[in-house]
Amino acid sequence: MPTKTDRAPEPRCSIARSLQVVGERWTLLIIRDALAGRTRFADFRDSLGIASDLLTSRLNALVEAGVMERRPYREPGARVRHSYHLSPAGEELLAVLASLQQWGDANRPHEAGPSMLSRSRSSGRPVRLAFVDDAGRPVPPEDVDLVYASADR
Amino acid sequence: MPTKTDRAPEPRCSIARSLQVVGERWTLLIIRDALAGRTRFADFRDSLGIASDLLTSRLNALVEAGVMERRPYREPGARVRHSYHLSPAGEELLAVLASLQQWGDANRPHEAGPSMLSRSRSSGRPVRLAFVDDAGRPVPPEDVDLVYASADR
Repeated sequence: MPTKTDRAPEPRCSIARSLQVVGERWTLLIIRDALAGRTRFADFRDSLGIASDLLTSRLNALVEAGVMERRPYREPGARVRHSYHLSPAGEELLAVLASLQQWGDANRPHEAGPSMLSRSRSSGRPVRLAFVDDAGRPVPPEDVDLVYASADR
Repeated sequence: MPTKTDRAPEPRCSIARSLQVVGERWTLLIIRDALAGRTRFADFRDSLGIASDLLTSRLNALVEAGVMERRPYREPGARVRHSYHLSPAGEELLAVLASLQQWGDANRPHEAGPSMLSRSRSSGRPVRLAFVDDAGRPVPPEDVDLVYASADR
């Protein structure tokens, strides 16, 4: 039996291509922390409780994938270190994290309530992800169908 | 140094709790196929090119987590087999998959174009995920802030 794998360079499915970059639990938690403002190696490590070598490997992969950028900085009397910042593509992962947050809050609620919130910077109001059609009208989730484009061909 | 890990039973963060269930690349690809209508073990296996023992393990974990349901069926002359169906909580993962699809289409485009589409069953129009505030008004992604709720306390 031939062994197919979506670790191949170019899976046809955009979900599989996204998961080549972020399809690992630590990676999405690193991006969560970066979206919440963390930039320094030690801050990621202490927040996540992840081994340093594993964190290095994950950050390097994110830099190589163009999701994060590495910048040198130097504190007085210390050696040069690097901080890690989301690229524009990395910032766009906010919707992926927000969708996981909403699912967890709805389906795995914590007795102490949500730990993270999405809100509008300008108005301070809570925001959530919703399906809208190409005219901007809301579409209830039960009306949304995920279909293979090839079925239309 | 104490070893923290979000494999602990109840991480405080809802993103981490979601990733306890779906934080593994194969798992999200199984759910993608289930959302697209696949229900049978052999169909998942052939679509994903995943080893049978690994697929069994992932499906069992999804059933145990309440994301999929296992149902017996029997074809004439064959032994009883099981099919796998998304629970309501599993159906809600559509937003997670749609967010990965949108990110991949925008940031990892394939030369042949998108392979999957989200559309309204009732109108047939394309749909996408967007941020809206609590009054249903659209909020541009750059205005959305992901904050730790504890920072408000």
